[in-house]
Amino acid sequence: MSRRRQIYEGKAKILYEGPEPGTIIQYFKDDATAFNAEKKGTINGKGVINNKISEHIFTRLELIGIPSHFIRRLNMREQLVKQVEIVPIEVIVRNVAAGSLSKRLGIEEGTPLPHTLLEYCYKDDALGDPLVAEEHIACFGWATQEEMQDISAMAIRINDFMAGMFAGIGIKLIDFKLEFGRLFDGDFSRIILADEISPDGCRLWDIETNEKLDKDRFRRDLGGEAEAYQEVARRLGLFPEGGPSEVADLDSERKKRGK
Amino acid sequence: MSRRRQIYEGKAKILYEGPEPGTIIQYFKDDATAFNAEKKGTINGKGVINNKISEHIFTRLELIGIPSHFIRRLNMREQLVKQVEIVPIEVIVRNVAAGSLSKRLGIEEGTPLPHTLLEYCYKDDALGDPLVAEEHIACFGWATQEEMQDISAMAIRINDFMAGMFAGIGIKLIDFKLEFGRLFDGDFSRIILADEISPDGCRLWDIETNEKLDKDRFRRDLGGEAEAYQEVARRLGLFPEGGPSEVADLDSERKKRGK
Ligand SMILES: Nc1ncnc2c1ncn2[C@@H]1O[C@H](COP(=O)(O)OP(=O)(O)OP(=O)(O)O)[C@@H](O)[C@H]1O
Ligand SMILES: Nc1ncnc2c1ncn2[C@@H]1O[C@H](COP(=O)(O)OP(=O)(O)OP(=O)(O)O)[C@@H](O)[C@H]1O
Ligand SMILES: [Mg+2]
Ligand SMILES: [Mg+2]
Repeated sequence: MSRRRQIYEGKAKILYEGPEPGTIIQYFKDDATAFNAEKKGTINGKGVINNKISEHIFTRLELIGIPSHFIRRLNMREQLVKQVEIVPIEVIVRNVAAGSLSKRLGIEEGTPLPHTLLEYCYKDDALGDPLVAEEHIACFGWATQEEMQDISAMAIRINDFMAGMFAGIGIKLIDFKLEFGRLFDGDFSRIILADEISPDGCRLWDIETNEKLDKDRFRRDLGGEAEAYQEVARRLGLFPEGGPSEVADLDSERKKRGK
Repeated sequence: MSRRRQIYEGKAKILYEGPEPGTIIQYFKDDATAFNAEKKGTINGKGVINNKISEHIFTRLELIGIPSHFIRRLNMREQLVKQVEIVPIEVIVRNVAAGSLSKRLGIEEGTPLPHTLLEYCYKDDALGDPLVAEEHIACFGWATQEEMQDISAMAIRINDFMAGMFAGIGIKLIDFKLEFGRLFDGDFSRIILADEISPDGCRLWDIETNEKLDKDRFRRDLGGEAEAYQEVARRLGLFPEGGPSEVADLDSERKKRGK
């Protein structure tokens, strides 16, 4: 377990080589960053909760035919996934104006968009993940036009599914970020959903109160971020054994004792 | 002449009501601005030169079937044009990386692009004309999909034509900005080319020396901006009577005496 090779350490996860070729292990950290890592902190138990939420959403999405990298959850902080070549584009799906869109286009936060808006950002931390258009993606060959068709079609379906899932538990899906990757089969490859879907990369507002149940609590120093993540997990019916807060506490206890 | 109604004063031009309904007069100023008007100055004779260059290019473009607002030049600083409803999108056509593209995507200035790239910016000075994608344009209804098809097709043709025209006089067309507008005919409207095409909104590099013959001389404090604009006009064969510098000097002399 401790001798496995680390492939990459990101801001929120660590990737390890998986047990079989073509697999990797995603380890979910409690580390939180914002504004292109200018702001750093931790959200207690976040990794445990995001691991569970992402498992939950990815397995449900497979049921409606969205292929993903998810194989199975291994333990509280780890899941086994298929290794892919990440398409260097972050896909942002927006239903309501918020965050960078509000700022960039001067639209008040909370304004419902006329219709769902897909945005693409070029994944490059040094450049601050700049917004790009399909023209840039085609010009620089970051993805083929066929791949972009698959990606946009999947993103729209994922949005419909997730909007419904969250509406059912009293949460408005404001926006969220997706990453896709190429799964190779010999010379061929196909696009599948990768990375994670969790309150780290979604804006989730309580339907009644508009209370933020996502990483904006951390970005904007609102406090109660761990409780917000727990609340999302609770409403999704995860951690029925004890409630996510106890599990997260247990897990961080264990880590403290372990080191 | 002095009692005509001013419609708008922009950074580089003043618009006056034209003699017939549906027409306006564009008056070309010597004022130059950069970085969303944070930097201000004047380029002596610029208005005279841009009026001529824009006339030249717009009339040549009509010959290859690009419809434009241009009717006729009235005098050294003015031209009569058809009034349109400006589509609030600046179209940037790029052949070689430079300026904001280089900065945004980390591509060295002067790198030829794999192929011509169209970029769209939302015309809003308060927001700094932010880059947008066709998704934003459709979502907020700034132009219809049919209009965007007309606009992008025309932009590509204009680029081919202008690249050829400038190549013929030893100038590389790096990038340029276009504005389009809706010309109404009863309830119907069609898209035509509007505004201006001049060294204010183009990047033009000497083919041999890469010397900049455009507004970057002003933006980057390189000096010799008036001479650069004159050189473009000279190579285009404009001002055969005396050379643009003399005409411009004459014109500014006349203005001084006039006031
Ligand atoms: N199935 C997969 N195969 C390979 N890489 C993956 C897979 N799923 C996700 N990744 C990549 O693993 C990394 C996850 O780590 P983390 O989310 O912490 O990264 P990050 O700090 O957000 O950096 P990045 O800007 O690259 O996302 C990301 O770079 C993501 O693109
Ligand atoms: N045929 C036309 N009918 C109506 N408006 C026009 C036409 N051609 C150009 N315009 C508009 O006239 C103005 C020209 O002025 P100028 O170029 O100085 O503006 P500007 O300061 O650059 O401001 P802007 O950001 O609006 O372009 C622009 O707003 C342009 O969109
Ligand atoms: Mg990430
Ligand atoms: Mg202008």
